[in-house]
Amino acid sequence: MDENPIRFGIIGCAQIARKVSRAIGLSHNSTVYAVASRSFEKAKKFALDNKLPDSVKIYGSYDEVLEDPNVDAVYMPLPTSLHVRWAILAATKKKHLLLEKPTALNTSELDQILEASRLNGVQFMDGTMWLHHPRTPKIKELLEDTKLFGKLKSIHSTCTFYNETPAFLENNIRVKPELDALGVLGDVGWYCIGAILWATNNQLPNTVTALPGPIRNESGVLMACGGSLTWLAGKEENDQEEKVATFYCSFLSNVCLDLSIHGTNGTIRLKDHIIPCKESSASFEFTSGAHFTELHLGWTVEPKKIEVVSEVPQETAMVQEFARLVGNINHGSCPDDKWSENSTNIQIVIDAINKSLDLGCKNVDM
Amino acid sequence: MDENPIRFGIIGCAQIARKVSRAIGLSHNSTVYAVASRSFEKAKKFALDNKLPDSVKIYGSYDEVLEDPNVDAVYMPLPTSLHVRWAILAATKKKHLLLEKPTALNTSELDQILEASRLNGVQFMDGTMWLHHPRTPKIKELLEDTKLFGKLKSIHSTCTFYNETPAFLENNIRVKPELDALGVLGDVGWYCIGAILWATNNQLPNTVTALPGPIRNESGVLMACGGSLTWLAGKEENDQEEKVATFYCSFLSNVCLDLSIHGTNGTIRLKDHIIPCKESSASFEFTSGAHFTELHLGWTVEPKKIEVVSEVPQETAMVQEFARLVGNINHGSCPDDKWSENSTNIQIVIDAINKSLDLGCKNVDM
Repeated sequence: MDENPIRFGIIGCAQIARKVSRAIGLSHNSTVYAVASRSFEKAKKFALDNKLPDSVKIYGSYDEVLEDPNVDAVYMPLPTSLHVRWAILAATKKKHLLLEKPTALNTSELDQILEASRLNGVQFMDGTMWLHHPRTPKIKELLEDTKLFGKLKSIHSTCTFYNETPAFLENNIRVKPELDALGVLGDVGWYCIGAILWATNNQLPNTVTALPGPIRNESGVLMACGGSLTWLAGKEENDQEEKVATFYCSFLSNVCLDLSIHGTNGTIRLKDHIIPCKESSASFEFTSGAHFTELHLGWTVEPKKIEVVSEVPQETAMVQEFARLVGNINHGSCPDDKWSENSTNIQIVIDAINKSLDLGCKNVDM
Repeated sequence: MDENPIRFGIIGCAQIARKVSRAIGLSHNSTVYAVASRSFEKAKKFALDNKLPDSVKIYGSYDEVLEDPNVDAVYMPLPTSLHVRWAILAATKKKHLLLEKPTALNTSELDQILEASRLNGVQFMDGTMWLHHPRTPKIKELLEDTKLFGKLKSIHSTCTFYNETPAFLENNIRVKPELDALGVLGDVGWYCIGAILWATNNQLPNTVTALPGPIRNESGVLMACGGSLTWLAGKEENDQEEKVATFYCSFLSNVCLDLSIHGTNGTIRLKDHIIPCKESSASFEFTSGAHFTELHLGWTVEPKKIEVVSEVPQETAMVQEFARLVGNINHGSCPDDKWSENSTNIQIVIDAINKSLDLGCKNVDM
C-alpha cells in the first residue's frame, strides 16, 4: 500500500459497487474511506456484506460523503438519471470523479458534468474496465502495426447478456425509464460503441445509423438494438480511410462479448471483451497475412491465440490508473482530459443512435 | 467409383473450375466427361494443367457440351452476366445444373433459369460449398436445440479477402460491370447472406438495409459493402421471434470468414466459415449456458471448441450430393427444390440490398 492512498467515498450501493469496492481495496494506491447509501442501514449492510474494514465510514446520505474533507475521490454507481445532479455536486466539492457508465442521459448532461470537473480541477474517468486490461494496449499495438495489421477496415461488436429472472427485466434499474432511460444502449451498448471508437483512435464517424427492429420493454426502454457507424474516406492523401462498424447489444440474449477488428492484413478477435472469462489472463486471436492456399483449399496461416497475463483484475487496474492521476494532481499536475474525451465521444454516438431510432432508423450525419 | 457416375461437362475454365473439377474427380458418383472453353486451346490447357484424364472430351465451344448426349450435368462457372443465357440453354438440353454463385444478376434472371430447370425436370444447385461440409449440419443441430442454444436472436457475418495484385482489382471478372456487376455482394456477400438465411431456416427478413459507406471501383462495381436484415416478431404465439443480422463483405480487407450466431442460451462462432483453414477437419466454438460469476469477475462456462472431421473436401461433398440427386432423378425421383429455394432467397436479399443502396441506404421492406 502506498503511503498516501487516494481515499474513496462510494456513493450508491449498486451491485457493481461490490466489484469496484473490492478493486479499490486491492489497489496499491487507494482505499475505501466511506460508503453512502440513501439510508445508513443500507450502507452498513453493504459494508458488512462486502467485508469492508471497520474503519470505513458509513453515511446515510450522499451529501455527507461530499462534505467529508478526507474523501479525495468518489466512485459513483448511481442510476444514470441521477448522475448530472450528484456528479456536478461532487466536482463542486472538489471530489475527483470515477463515474459509472453510461456517464449521463445525453451529451448535454455529460458536458455539464465535465464543465464542473474542469472548473474544479478534478479528474474525471468513467467506469469502463476493459480499457485498463493489459490485453487492451497489446491489441492496440497490433492495430497500429501497419505491416502486421494494415489499415483498419471494419469492426463488429456484439455485447449481450441474458438474465432469465423476470426481476431483472422488470425491476432492474437498467430497464427503468426514470432511472436508466438509455437501457441496453447505455449499459452494454456503451461498451460496443466504446470499443469501436477505441479501435479508431477515438475518431467520430461521419454517419451513425440505428438498425431496424429495436426491442423495447413496456416502458419504452431499449432491451436490444444495433447500429452502424461509417467513416468516409478523406479527400486528401493520408486522410482517414473509409471504415464501417456494426454493433448489437441486448439484454435478451446469452452472454456474448464479441469484438472483431478487421484490417487489410490482419484480423483481431476477442470473445470475452468486456469481462474476460477469467481474472488471471485473457486471450485474443490474431491472424496476419493469411491467404488462401492453391485452389483455395485452405488457409496459408491459421488464426493464433495470444494470451496476456493480468497482474491485477482489470477493475483494479482502472482504480489504480485513476488514483495515479489523482495523485499526480495532488502533486501539481493537471487532470488528464483523455478520459473525458473518450466518454464524450461514446455519449455523442449514443445520442446519434437514439436520434436515428426516433427518425425510424434514418442515417444521422455527424 | 460408382458403376454409373454422373458425367459432368464443365462449361468455362474459371479459376474456381480447377477446384470443382478436382472435386468431381474425387467424388465417388461423378466424373469429368467434358471441358469447354471459348477456344479449344484454352480447354485443352485447362485439362492438361489440372491433369484431367486423357479420356476427357475437349470442346472449343459451350454448345458442343450441351449437344453431347453423354453429358448428364453441367458445372457452370461462367461470369454471372452469362448465366441466364447458358443456364437456360443447358436446362433446355436436359442437362442438370450445378451453377456457380452468384446464380444470376437479379431475381428475375434466376427465376427464368429456375423455370427452365423445372420445365425440363433438371436438378438445380448453386455452387455454395460450405453448406455441404459436415460441420454445417452439426451446427444446425445445435441451433435447433432449444435448451443448449435457445432462440436465435442475432447473427453477424464478415466475409472478406484482399488480393494485393492490382490485376485482381482491375481485371478480375468479379470486378467488371459487364461480367459480374454484383461485385463483392454477389461474390462473398452471397455467402454472408446465405449463412444468415441458413441460420434462420431460410426465412426471408421483413426489412433489408444497406449500410452507409459502400465502396465501388471506377466502373461502379461494389468492392465493399454491408447490410442488415431484420425479422420482426410475429403477432401470434409461436410466430417467428424478432432477430437481427448484419454482414460485411469486402475485396479490400484481409482474409476473414467470420460467422457468429447468438441465441438466448448459446453462441456459435466460426472463423473459417466458407473455406475451412484445412481440408481434413473444421472447428467452431460453442458456448452454452454461460453466466457471469459472482461479482461478474469472470464466466461460469468458457467457449469450447468442437472439431468436425471431413471425410472428403466440402466441394467434393457438394458434388456428391448433387450427383446423388441427379442419380435419383435418373431412377424416377423428382428434382429437389430445396436448392433453388435457397438460391432464390439469397438473390432476393441481394436485390433488396442493391435497392437500398440505390435509395441512399433506406430500409427496404420485403
